[in-house]
Amino acid sequence: MIDLRSDTVTKPTPEMRQAAFDAVVGDDVYNEDPTLKELEELAANKLGKEAALFVPSGTQGNQIAVLTHCQSGQEIILEAESHIFYYEGASISAFAGVQPRTINGTRGAMDPELVKAAIREDDIHLPETGLICLENTHNRAGGAIVSLENMKEIHRIAQENNIPVHLDGARLFNAAVASEVDVKTYAAQTDTVQFCLSKGLGAPVGSIIAGSEDFIKKARKWRKRLGGGLRQAGIIAAPGIVALKTMVDRLVEDHENAKFLASGLQEIKGLSIENNVDTNIILVNTKEAGLSSKEFLIKLKQEGILGVSFGPNTVRFTTHFDVTREEIKSVMEKVNKLF
Amino acid sequence: MIDLRSDTVTKPTPEMRQAAFDAVVGDDVYNEDPTLKELEELAANKLGKEAALFVPSGTQGNQIAVLTHCQSGQEIILEAESHIFYYEGASISAFAGVQPRTINGTRGAMDPELVKAAIREDDIHLPETGLICLENTHNRAGGAIVSLENMKEIHRIAQENNIPVHLDGARLFNAAVASEVDVKTYAAQTDTVQFCLSKGLGAPVGSIIAGSEDFIKKARKWRKRLGGGLRQAGIIAAPGIVALKTMVDRLVEDHENAKFLASGLQEIKGLSIENNVDTNIILVNTKEAGLSSKEFLIKLKQEGILGVSFGPNTVRFTTHFDVTREEIKSVMEKVNKLF
Amino acid sequence: MIDLRSDTVTKPTPEMRQAAFDAVVGDDVYNEDPTLKELEELAANKLGKEAALFVPSGTQGNQIAVLTHCQSGQEIILEAESHIFYYEGASISAFAGVQPRTINGTRGAMDPELVKAAIREDDIHLPETGLICLENTHNRAGGAIVSLENMKEIHRIAQENNIPVHLDGARLFNAAVASEVDVKTYAAQTDTVQFCLSKGLGAPVGSIIAGSEDFIKKARKWRKRLGGGLRQAGIIAAPGIVALKTMVDRLVEDHENAKFLASGLQEIKGLSIENNVDTNIILVNTKEAGLSSKEFLIKLKQEGILGVSFGPNTVRFTTHFDVTREEIKSVMEKVNKLF
Amino acid sequence: MIDLRSDTVTKPTPEMRQAAFDAVVGDDVYNEDPTLKELEELAANKLGKEAALFVPSGTQGNQIAVLTHCQSGQEIILEAESHIFYYEGASISAFAGVQPRTINGTRGAMDPELVKAAIREDDIHLPETGLICLENTHNRAGGAIVSLENMKEIHRIAQENNIPVHLDGARLFNAAVASEVDVKTYAAQTDTVQFCLSKGLGAPVGSIIAGSEDFIKKARKWRKRLGGGLRQAGIIAAPGIVALKTMVDRLVEDHENAKFLASGLQEIKGLSIENNVDTNIILVNTKEAGLSSKEFLIKLKQEGILGVSFGPNTVRFTTHFDVTREEIKSVMEKVNKLF
Repeated sequence: MIDLRSDTVTKPTPEMRQAAFDAVVGDDVYNEDPTLKELEELAANKLGKEAALFVPSGTQGNQIAVLTHCQSGQEIILEAESHIFYYEGASISAFAGVQPRTINGTRGAMDPELVKAAIREDDIHLPETGLICLENTHNRAGGAIVSLENMKEIHRIAQENNIPVHLDGARLFNAAVASEVDVKTYAAQTDTVQFCLSKGLGAPVGSIIAGSEDFIKKARKWRKRLGGGLRQAGIIAAPGIVALKTMVDRLVEDHENAKFLASGLQEIKGLSIENNVDTNIILVNTKEAGLSSKEFLIKLKQEGILGVSFGPNTVRFTTHFDVTREEIKSVMEKVNKLF
Repeated sequence: MIDLRSDTVTKPTPEMRQAAFDAVVGDDVYNEDPTLKELEELAANKLGKEAALFVPSGTQGNQIAVLTHCQSGQEIILEAESHIFYYEGASISAFAGVQPRTINGTRGAMDPELVKAAIREDDIHLPETGLICLENTHNRAGGAIVSLENMKEIHRIAQENNIPVHLDGARLFNAAVASEVDVKTYAAQTDTVQFCLSKGLGAPVGSIIAGSEDFIKKARKWRKRLGGGLRQAGIIAAPGIVALKTMVDRLVEDHENAKFLASGLQEIKGLSIENNVDTNIILVNTKEAGLSSKEFLIKLKQEGILGVSFGPNTVRFTTHFDVTREEIKSVMEKVNKLF
Repeated sequence: MIDLRSDTVTKPTPEMRQAAFDAVVGDDVYNEDPTLKELEELAANKLGKEAALFVPSGTQGNQIAVLTHCQSGQEIILEAESHIFYYEGASISAFAGVQPRTINGTRGAMDPELVKAAIREDDIHLPETGLICLENTHNRAGGAIVSLENMKEIHRIAQENNIPVHLDGARLFNAAVASEVDVKTYAAQTDTVQFCLSKGLGAPVGSIIAGSEDFIKKARKWRKRLGGGLRQAGIIAAPGIVALKTMVDRLVEDHENAKFLASGLQEIKGLSIENNVDTNIILVNTKEAGLSSKEFLIKLKQEGILGVSFGPNTVRFTTHFDVTREEIKSVMEKVNKLF
Repeated sequence: MIDLRSDTVTKPTPEMRQAAFDAVVGDDVYNEDPTLKELEELAANKLGKEAALFVPSGTQGNQIAVLTHCQSGQEIILEAESHIFYYEGASISAFAGVQPRTINGTRGAMDPELVKAAIREDDIHLPETGLICLENTHNRAGGAIVSLENMKEIHRIAQENNIPVHLDGARLFNAAVASEVDVKTYAAQTDTVQFCLSKGLGAPVGSIIAGSEDFIKKARKWRKRLGGGLRQAGIIAAPGIVALKTMVDRLVEDHENAKFLASGLQEIKGLSIENNVDTNIILVNTKEAGLSSKEFLIKLKQEGILGVSFGPNTVRFTTHFDVTREEIKSVMEKVNKLF
C-alpha cells in the first residue's frame, strides 16, 4: 500500500526507536522526566517562547489553549474550515463553553478586516471575544501557507483589542521550510503555538504547546484535567527530540514530491488540482471524471493507493517521510491507467 | 420620545393590566397556576402543537430548546446572524456545550443545499449535527419573512437525517400576519417553536415554547435549572392571554407604518433602506450621509427619536403598538430637517 | 385546602395587585424600568450592598452568583443538604462547570474547621476552591437559623483564603425577624446575597441578588444568558416593593404559628418533631406511627391539608401569610382525629 | 533516593523497552495499530468485557466513562475521597456537567443503603442519578480492598434503578492479587472498568477502559475530543502488553513489602499506621511525634526517602516494583534513627 492519507501515518525511524529504548525517564506528573523536559526546552527555544508543554495530540494542545485563554460564554474567531472548528468534535464548546465565530478564509487566511469586524462590542447581548485562532499551514485549504503579513496584521488587531492569538501550527514546520521563514518568526505573531511531532516530523506520538511561563503553568493543569498528564513520557519524548532535531529540513522533499505528484495528476483528463500546492498536501477534484471522491478512493485502494475524502468530489493526498519519489511515480502511473 | 428601538418597549395596555389585576393564580412550580395553564393551552392550540410552556424570555425559550434537543459535543446549524447565535451571549456553547455551524443566509433564509451539505457524517473527528434552527421573521435581516417553501425544504432535509428543527419565532406572528399564512402552517415545519408575547404582541413579559408533550416535559426541567420556574405567574400570564387574543391582527398596522416610514426615509438624500420591509423592521443606511450609525442615533435622540445601531452605518427602526401613524410622520419630518 | 406545602404558595395581596396595576414600567433589558430600579435600590439598601438585581427566581439568583464568582473547573464548598446542591438540578455543574464539595452541617450550619479543611491547596490534581455558599435560614434543616457567629467565622476563613462567600438567603428575612438581627448584619458577612420576594414576603414572582457594583454588572450579563432579562418587569417588581415594605415584620406571626403547630403535633402519639422550630418550617416524623411520609400526606390531603415529603418518614409543613391561626388549629384537630 | 511516593514512578523494564523497540505500529486514529489492538483485546479478555480502549491516563479513562455514561445536569454517586472526585480537578463538572453526590465510605466502601438513599427521585427540582462510581483498591483509604460483596450489593441496587456502574480500578490488579479474586469477577459487578498499566504493573504510560462494544464505540469519540487519540501508539502499547502479561502476579511482593514496612514503622514511637495494609499503600500518622506530614517529609528527604502528604499529619508510602526488600529495610532503619 502507498499510504497518502496523512503524514500522521509515518512510522518511527530506527533512530527514534533507539532513542525511546535508551531514554532516561521519570514521572512527568511529578515534573521529573528529564527527556521530556529536554524536549520541552528544545521546542520552546525553537519557537522563541518562554516555555513549552508536551501533549499527547494536536487536538489536546489546541483544546488546552482554548481552555487556558478563554472563559465559558466567550466567543473565539477562527477560519470556517480550521481544524479546531471542523475536526475536533465541537470540543471547544463542549469543554470550554466557548462559541466559534467563523470567517470564510482565502487559502486558509482570514481577511484582517473581517476579523476586526467580528470582534464583539461590550453589550449585554453579546459574548466577549476571547481568542483569535490561526492555522498554518491550513489543512483543509490544501496545506496552504498563511502569509507572515496576514498573521502580523491579525496580530496587530488582536493586540489593539487585548485579545490573545493562538496558532494551530500542527504543520507549522512545513510552512517554515517552504516559505524559508523561521518558525520563530511565525510564532512571534502569536501568544501561543501548537505543533505536532507526529505529522511530517515523523514522531510516533505527541504535540507541543508553547507560550509564556504563566500560560504553560495554567495549561499544565488543564492538561491534567483532560487526562494528558503522562508518567514515564520520556519513552515518547525521546523520538520527539529526534524528530525535532533531524526531520525538519527534509520536509522539503515531501513538498517536492507533492508538487511532482500534482503536476502529474493534473495532466490526467477528468482530474484537476484544487489547491496551489504550497507544501505536502494535494486536493484532487474528481468531478469531471464523473466520480465521487468515495468512488475514486475505492478504485485507488484496489491499486494499492490510499487517500482521504475531503468533500463530495475532493480527495486529499498527503506526502510524507514514508513515501518515496519512486512510489509517487508509481501512484501517477497507476492513476493514469485508471483513466 | 418616539421610541423605535424595538417592539419590546411596548407598554402593557389597560386591558392587560386589568387582566393581571384580576388573574386567578397558583404556584406554577407545583403546576397549579390556572391562568398560566390557560395561556399555555391557548398557545399550543394556536401553534398546533401538543403542549406549550411559558418562559420569562425569548432567549430562555431558545436556550431551553437547544438544551432539550441536544447533547454536549453536538453541532447545530443556524443562520450566521440569527438571534440564537448572534445575541444570546454564546449561551448555546456555555450551557448546552454545542457548537454553532453558521450559514450565511439570504434575507434570513438559509439555502437548503447548504444546510444539507453542513450536516456532519459519522466520523470520529466530527461532532454530530443535533439541531437545525430557523428564525422567522429574521431580525438582523430586517424583519424578513422566511418563506414557507424554504422552511418546508429544510424540514424535509432534517427529517431525512433524523435531525429536529427549532424555530425561533420571536416575531412569528408578524410573519404570519404579513404573509397571510397561519402560524400553525409555519409551526408544522418544525418540531419546536418559540414566540414572544412581549414584542409586537405587547405583553409586558414572557415567551412561549411549544412542541410535543414529551419535549415540554423535559423542557420544564431545563426551565427550572435556568431559573425560569416562576410562582404566581398568572400575574404575567394574564396579560399574555390578552396579547394573544387581541393583539395579533393589528400587527398589520405596524407593518404599514414601517413601509410608510421606509418610503419616506428613502427619499432623503444620504439615507437608503437596506432591507425589503416585509414586516415591522427598517434598516436605514447612513453611509452616503457620511454618518456612522452612532452619530446618526445621537442626532435622532436630540430630536426625540430612538433607534438602535445594527452595524457601522446601519440603524434599525422598529414599529410597534406604542407608535402611531402621526408619530411616524413626525419622525419623517424631523429626519428630513436633519439633512 | 389548607396549604402548608411551602410559603411560595402565598397569593399576592390586593395591595400588591393594585401596585402591579399602577406600576410605571419600561424595558428593563434597556435598564429603563423605573419600578424595577426602585425595587433594586430598596433591596440593596436593606441589605447594605452597593447594588442589587431582580431575578425571576431564587434558583436563578443562586446560579448567577455561582456563574459570576467562579470559573469552570473550580470547586465550591456548601452544606450537604443546601438548596443550591440539593434542589437545583445540578445546575452549578451543568452551567458553571463547578464541583460541589459538601459538608454535613449541624442544623444547617457548617463547622468552620471543616470548611477550612476543605479548602484546596495549590496542586495540579486539585480544583481551586472558588466559592463558599451559606444558606440562612436553612430549608432542609427545618428553617434553622445559622448563627451570626458561625457566619462570621466562616467569613473570616474565606477572607484569609481570598475566597468569596455567597448567601442563599431565600428566607433571610425569616432569620432576621426571628433572631432580631438585621438582614444587613447577616449580609455583611458575605460578598453576595440572594433572597426571595416570593416566599414568606408574599410577592407573586421574583428574587433579588445583591453585591458590589462590579459583581452586579457581571451578574446582569449572566442573567441575560440564562434568559432572566425581562421587559416591562415593573409589573412584577411593584408587588415586590409592597412585599419588602410591608410584609417583613409580620413574619413573626408565621413563626408563632409554626411553633404553635409543632407543639400541638408533638403531643400526638406516633408523631414527633424533628427540628427545633426556629422560624416557619416544621419537620414532622411519622416513623413511630408506622406511616411513610407519602402515606401520611395522602391521609392529610383527604382532610384538606397539604404538606410535602422531605424524606421517607419526614413531612415538611411551612406556615405563611395565607394560613391563619384558625386554620392551624384546624390542622391540629384534623391530624389528632387521624391518629 | 528510595522513592515511595507512588507506584506511578516505576520505570519501564528492559523487556518493556525492547517491546517498544520492536513494536509493529500503525495509526491508531485510523484504528490500525496492531500492537494497540492486541493490548486492547488482551485487556478486554482479562476483564471479561466485550471491548477495551487504550487511554493515555487513568484520569482520562475515568473522564471518558463519565462523559459516555452521563448527560449534563445529572448527578453521580461516588465515595467522598474517591480519586474521580478528589484528584481530577473537578473535571466531571467542568467537562461532563455532572454533579458529584459524595458518600463517606468505610475503608473506601460505600454503605449500599446510603447509595440507595442517594438515588434521586423523579422531580423537577432534582438532577437524575446518572452513574455510580466505585474505586478498588481505594487510594485515599490506604489501598483498601472494597469487598466483592459490597460491589455486588451496590451493583444490584444500580441495576434495579437502571443506573450504570463504573469502576475506577486504577489498582484493581492489586485488589485481585491480594484478595485472590479474579479481576473478571470484580469487573462483572460493573458496566465499565478503568485500570492503569502505569502504576503497579510498571508500564511507562497508559490505562485501559473496558465495557460493552457500544460503550467503547462512544468512548472512542470522547477520547478523541479529550485529545487522547494517539498515532503510532504501539510504542507505548507494547510495554503495556508486557506489563499485563508479566507484572500482575508479582504485585504480591509489593503487598508483602508494604506489610513489612508497616509492621516496622508502627514500632516506632510517635508514628502509627492509620490503615489496615491490604495492598501496597501505607498511611503513616505523625501526630504523636509532634510533626506535620510536611515536616516529616522534609526529614525523610534528607535521608533519601520520598513519600507524599495525605493530610495534615498523614504521609502515604507506596511500595512498587522499583523498591526492593533491602530498600524497605533501609527505610525502616533510617526512620528509626530519626526518632
